[in-house]
Amino acid sequence: MSKILIRAMVLPMTGGDEFFPQGELCIEDDVIVSVGKSGSAPAGFTPDRILELPNDVVMPGLINTHTHAAMTLLRGYADDLPLMPWLNEKVWPFEDKLTDEDIYWGTSLALCEMIRSGTTTMLDMYASMDRVAEAVLQAGTRAVLSRGLIGNGPNGDRALQESIELVRHYQGAGNGRVSVMFGPHAPYTCSGDYLRKVKAEADRFNAGIHIHVAETQDEIKILQEQYGKTPVQWLEDLGLFGGHVVAAHCVHLTPEDMEILARKHVCVAHNPESNMKLNSGTAPVTELRAKGVIVGLGTDGASSNNNLDMFGEMRTAAFLQKLYVNSTALPAYEVLEMATIGGAQTLGLENVGMLAPGFKADLISIDMDQPHFYPRFSIPAHLVYAAHAGDVRTMMVDGKFLMEERKLMSMDEEKVCQEAERRAKRIAGELAVK
Amino acid sequence: MSKILIRAMVLPMTGGDEFFPQGELCIEDDVIVSVGKSGSAPAGFTPDRILELPNDVVMPGLINTHTHAAMTLLRGYADDLPLMPWLNEKVWPFEDKLTDEDIYWGTSLALCEMIRSGTTTMLDMYASMDRVAEAVLQAGTRAVLSRGLIGNGPNGDRALQESIELVRHYQGAGNGRVSVMFGPHAPYTCSGDYLRKVKAEADRFNAGIHIHVAETQDEIKILQEQYGKTPVQWLEDLGLFGGHVVAAHCVHLTPEDMEILARKHVCVAHNPESNMKLNSGTAPVTELRAKGVIVGLGTDGASSNNNLDMFGEMRTAAFLQKLYVNSTALPAYEVLEMATIGGAQTLGLENVGMLAPGFKADLISIDMDQPHFYPRFSIPAHLVYAAHAGDVRTMMVDGKFLMEERKLMSMDEEKVCQEAERRAKRIAGELAVK
Repeated sequence: MSKILIRAMVLPMTGGDEFFPQGELCIEDDVIVSVGKSGSAPAGFTPDRILELPNDVVMPGLINTHTHAAMTLLRGYADDLPLMPWLNEKVWPFEDKLTDEDIYWGTSLALCEMIRSGTTTMLDMYASMDRVAEAVLQAGTRAVLSRGLIGNGPNGDRALQESIELVRHYQGAGNGRVSVMFGPHAPYTCSGDYLRKVKAEADRFNAGIHIHVAETQDEIKILQEQYGKTPVQWLEDLGLFGGHVVAAHCVHLTPEDMEILARKHVCVAHNPESNMKLNSGTAPVTELRAKGVIVGLGTDGASSNNNLDMFGEMRTAAFLQKLYVNSTALPAYEVLEMATIGGAQTLGLENVGMLAPGFKADLISIDMDQPHFYPRFSIPAHLVYAAHAGDVRTMMVDGKFLMEERKLMSMDEEKVCQEAERRAKRIAGELAVK
Repeated sequence: MSKILIRAMVLPMTGGDEFFPQGELCIEDDVIVSVGKSGSAPAGFTPDRILELPNDVVMPGLINTHTHAAMTLLRGYADDLPLMPWLNEKVWPFEDKLTDEDIYWGTSLALCEMIRSGTTTMLDMYASMDRVAEAVLQAGTRAVLSRGLIGNGPNGDRALQESIELVRHYQGAGNGRVSVMFGPHAPYTCSGDYLRKVKAEADRFNAGIHIHVAETQDEIKILQEQYGKTPVQWLEDLGLFGGHVVAAHCVHLTPEDMEILARKHVCVAHNPESNMKLNSGTAPVTELRAKGVIVGLGTDGASSNNNLDMFGEMRTAAFLQKLYVNSTALPAYEVLEMATIGGAQTLGLENVGMLAPGFKADLISIDMDQPHFYPRFSIPAHLVYAAHAGDVRTMMVDGKFLMEERKLMSMDEEKVCQEAERRAKRIAGELAVK
């Protein structure tokens, strides 16, 4: 039984303007026992350790609702290209060369970066997901994992079988830190029959579905030609919605699409930086939220971003909606909600995303004693509009410290960086020779 | 006579793909003597100090071509508001309360943040510019200073007189670190007569002009109603162009406006984050650059950004053009050029913005031994798409170290932060009571 008391400024993300400038947070094992102002610790709570962070804001860990973690191996490998040459000549040939072991190390690199930048939980979609699960279990973070399923490819059935194995082995693993969703890639890479099969398996295992939807105009065109429908309408007609579904991107939506997403309680993972960098477009986040759709934030993979920094993503999300709608759109506190409790809801995680009694002890501290955080008029505004990834000092997930004083506790960062470097350069070298 | 040798990865920003993975840089007093690969130091160069930074990239310091430094005092004071209430009810009443001393401390806060985030040079526009000059001279950075001139207000003539004093006292001060421009605020806040007067004074002192141009649709409407012209066309007809002019923002331009800017060699300061946050719009940077217009990058003031982080600004500039044009627009190296040599050209500074023999020793080092910089496929892509303000380890301006190992050398950071906090809260308190 471990008992920890943290004294800091506390932004619990419990709504309204709740904030404790001199706050106290009590943790027992993996669970938050109390959150409040100085002196609010329950009588009889005798901590094994007291952590004093008077110049830090403690808040819930950030939740990255859409990424392809192992793609850190492609960071900086291909930028500033048109979409199709980028995919055909660079990304896909590189990915074809990835071994299970490469994916393990690429994911580990992503996890080092995520811990450093305050992300406690990710929703991932990739291959070799057992090795991804292994990396997550070792790193100590929380994750929802989905095996990416290209139904139209030769490996569609094998990949679906791998998904089933993944659910069987890893659903709830690591004291519940790991959970699993089914990951049909997109409406244009999976046939209707295949998607129905995936949906049946998801229902059988009571698992969610994670899918790319309406990311580009090309996708809209393809679906229109094939089915005479929008991606959202086609997926609804197929019966894919109804359970827990995370639709990533949702850039190009009709008003009717938005009604469907709202009515079917589909959650949206918004990836503003990837959408800008790849010229995909601007997702109608303000309208979606106004209709009651839950929207989380994601970085997408490091090949189209090129980092996994959720602080940057929050900032870009806010700025992009302000440019697209008006200067009052997506105010700071709402962006923080999207990146914390909204992210937890997007991923279907209970007791995560807020600092409140009974919630999981997933938290970060941000070092506010730096010039770019003065004067201290608004902590939410500072976190969204002024903070950067390097401001995170501390991370705890499931009651365990993963970073203190900016030092990683669960990972051999140097080894991870060197392995990732060696493996990525090996692949690039092989491709250059060809 | 001081002689310094730095060993590091060196990205000199001299064009093409010049990069020295194991580089050597020799500095004598305030000037770069040589830049090249390991062993390239001139025979007979005997350094007083050798700085080994094998995991850092050394590059020219970043140049912020448009800011209002003292407005750091308003950081987080007013966000997520419509433009006019933001100005009328928050920004202007706050600014009315600022004393000379407040402006000194607000500028000092900005300079602490700039040094930490790699900005060696700024173009500033504000009031009490003698106190701003004092802050810059103490901090050790480089700056071009302009007294903001609201010609239509009651203090137009006094402010112009202050500009003249500023030129007389500070042009070339601090071994040339400080220079001065005239700063007529905008076409809609200065009459034609006033602008002609300013232009005559700028010519008399051979000084440049720094002015906001075509920032919002409202400005376009006002000028259309008053003069039947666009801001650019009106300024050209007035004769304001011809000398060195920095036009900040330039969001709303006609093709003819762009031709004028190109023909008259007007330089543009592009402020993508401020333009997004205030819903001003997207500047046609790609078209301007295609027409040969020199475009620098700026953060604008901390009230509309809310930091002075040029790494974030580079990233947003690239992403915004990719969203607006296509995924190949504004590639990483070109963004770096805008933030370094392009910034120097925008400000009319010679021998600044590149690492080359004879250039001023204004440089920064970026700590590349971090997970978000692996694998090391492309240093320019990493600096633009993955870096953040906290990655800067070292800064030198005019041959003097202003930061080493992330520790400020020329400023009492703690005192600056506390003074800024106290003064900003005092003003907010006075306004809250009213």
